[in-house]
Amino acid sequence: MKNKSLFLLIGLFVQILVLHAQTPRGPIVVSPKVNADKTVTFSYLAPNATTVLLDGNQFGSANVPMTKNTDGVWSITVGPVKPDIYPYGFKVDGITINDPANTYLFPNERFKASLVEIPSDSPAIYALQNVPHGTVTYEYYPSVEGSTGTMVIYTPAGYTKETAKKYPVYYLISGTTDTEETFWKVGKVNLMLDNMIAQGKAKPMIVVMPYGNPLARIAEQTGKDKPSDVMSRDGEDALKRMKLFETDLITKVMPYIEKNYRTINNRDNRAIGGFSRGGGQTLRTAFNNVDKFAYVCSYASYISPAEMDKNFTNITANPAKTNKDFKLLFSGIGTEDFLYKGTTEWENYLKDKKINFKSYITDGGHTWMNVKKYLNETLPVLFK
Amino acid sequence: MKNKSLFLLIGLFVQILVLHAQTPRGPIVVSPKVNADKTVTFSYLAPNATTVLLDGNQFGSANVPMTKNTDGVWSITVGPVKPDIYPYGFKVDGITINDPANTYLFPNERFKASLVEIPSDSPAIYALQNVPHGTVTYEYYPSVEGSTGTMVIYTPAGYTKETAKKYPVYYLISGTTDTEETFWKVGKVNLMLDNMIAQGKAKPMIVVMPYGNPLARIAEQTGKDKPSDVMSRDGEDALKRMKLFETDLITKVMPYIEKNYRTINNRDNRAIGGFSRGGGQTLRTAFNNVDKFAYVCSYASYISPAEMDKNFTNITANPAKTNKDFKLLFSGIGTEDFLYKGTTEWENYLKDKKINFKSYITDGGHTWMNVKKYLNETLPVLFK
Repeated sequence: MKNKSLFLLIGLFVQILVLHAQTPRGPIVVSPKVNADKTVTFSYLAPNATTVLLDGNQFGSANVPMTKNTDGVWSITVGPVKPDIYPYGFKVDGITINDPANTYLFPNERFKASLVEIPSDSPAIYALQNVPHGTVTYEYYPSVEGSTGTMVIYTPAGYTKETAKKYPVYYLISGTTDTEETFWKVGKVNLMLDNMIAQGKAKPMIVVMPYGNPLARIAEQTGKDKPSDVMSRDGEDALKRMKLFETDLITKVMPYIEKNYRTINNRDNRAIGGFSRGGGQTLRTAFNNVDKFAYVCSYASYISPAEMDKNFTNITANPAKTNKDFKLLFSGIGTEDFLYKGTTEWENYLKDKKINFKSYITDGGHTWMNVKKYLNETLPVLFK
Repeated sequence: MKNKSLFLLIGLFVQILVLHAQTPRGPIVVSPKVNADKTVTFSYLAPNATTVLLDGNQFGSANVPMTKNTDGVWSITVGPVKPDIYPYGFKVDGITINDPANTYLFPNERFKASLVEIPSDSPAIYALQNVPHGTVTYEYYPSVEGSTGTMVIYTPAGYTKETAKKYPVYYLISGTTDTEETFWKVGKVNLMLDNMIAQGKAKPMIVVMPYGNPLARIAEQTGKDKPSDVMSRDGEDALKRMKLFETDLITKVMPYIEKNYRTINNRDNRAIGGFSRGGGQTLRTAFNNVDKFAYVCSYASYISPAEMDKNFTNITANPAKTNKDFKLLFSGIGTEDFLYKGTTEWENYLKDKKINFKSYITDGGHTWMNVKKYLNETLPVLFK
């Protein structure tokens, strides 16, 4: 009996050692930590670093020095910070890194920012709330030039359990160097719709989020050098890339979605929208395919008057028809956005041509904080 | 007419400027680039860095110095590298970062590694191939203590278009500090099953990948300090966390899945498996719920003989019953895994107790390269 107790004791000791061995070394860093007063504490383990700065310029904390404790953990508390979702990183001895303790990352092909959400006192429209939730599904589909495409699809709560009900579809395209994940992981379109649908503010809809740069995917899959989305600075080449995207969307993505999801297949039940480059793809795809989409949402993008005159007289020649065709032509832009001037010129051009559009001007710049505002304006008016 | 041409010319010039302005600055970095001879070129833009090393020890490239070109791009070509999927990073002036040009990231709560896939000459079982693809869906569900849980669900090709066919379910739990994304984004269980099902090697099944650390989620959602998965080094506390996971899985995850997916709801059509901590959760959950799971897969984990004696005499008291209950009790481990010795002790214990199990010993360590080998051994034998 005594032997058994000893054995048990040794066994438990071994087990503690094993559990110990199974864990990474070093003090535990919890970062970020959003405090009750909306200040935020950022922490980073780096005993050997000389200087660590918080790189959070989008919430007014650009290059704020962090302080090292005796465990080698650098930390700083900033704020209170205005409720929103912000990107940030650390500048460690001059090198910008994302936060290794934070799984919430900005999906992007050119930078790796971490994200922090500062909750509002009353839950924001994009916050996780206790309402029925839709699902977010990753699909492979047969894409242009024999490639296999990737896209992400939101279906509203109840979709999977029903077998007959059909839904309208919003095709939503992210910005340059963003990925097919960005509109849900950063833009929170899924949670916004969960909340809006629960509150009766938006119609239940499917949202399809394709990857915006099929040329890069094709090169990757065929073993060629992967061209970056931003490799070519030439306008004509960029337009060719947009055209390839349009071909992919119209001839591959849409047929796949309409075959595999319960969609309502007419223009009044299709919307198209996007941010930045995705906004440019949106406008060109919509104007080239007036028979396909009745709702068009440009989030911080535009087409130059010259290109409108050259390529889209179909839109401007008969304003009465265009104004009947498009149940919504939305243009959202921030006054500090570097595309503000161009967007204003485009809007003035549309006015001159008697094309109706909904202009929505916010403060702020070319950010995903603003994209959520544009989503908040547009999701409730789609398909109504 | 002359004026119009001039206007068009200016317009196109403006448009090129806009397209230029819409792109980030700096030379374009494509990284990683896998070459035809299976060498890999890694690149990183950092004009001001003093030293940049490739941190790729899992493919034999630990701390390999990279070379800077006149554009400030550091690069190195290494290999040929044995086909597989490997984590890597860059050490920039001593600071480890992930690759900002690469969207393929290792989902983890404690580190941020980038991933590179070296293709085989004949496609690996985990490679994207031209076969019918299943989908990967992110779900919110009502979890323990009023929290909202997150999980990821693979459904096989054809699932969404059918309305009646039911499937067996594999509950698959990732390792310490991994997330609910790790088993598909790193473990590639979805592509492995796509390929195996297409080849007739595995039965079509649903795979449910829950988040493994509900205590951290609860703390986060209730505004408490988020405890890290590795915060407590105490064995008993770790066991309590495992118990909370078990409660979540049995009383929340499983009922949600069985309500919302077309599952076959009996023990012969349920498997449970996991890696590292997830393997520990697997074994304890399976042994505490013999009525629920007929297939049990431990990938690089074990239970100490002392804990077996203390808590799981239900498993050892009647070996004939246990051997009938479990259609598979799988233990996979690498000879260089730091849990190899403990796993061997556990396997010897099972032998002594006359409990049947399938031992699968590989070379290599506690890595996701090995996890894919364990998946390759187990997926084909589930539900047969």
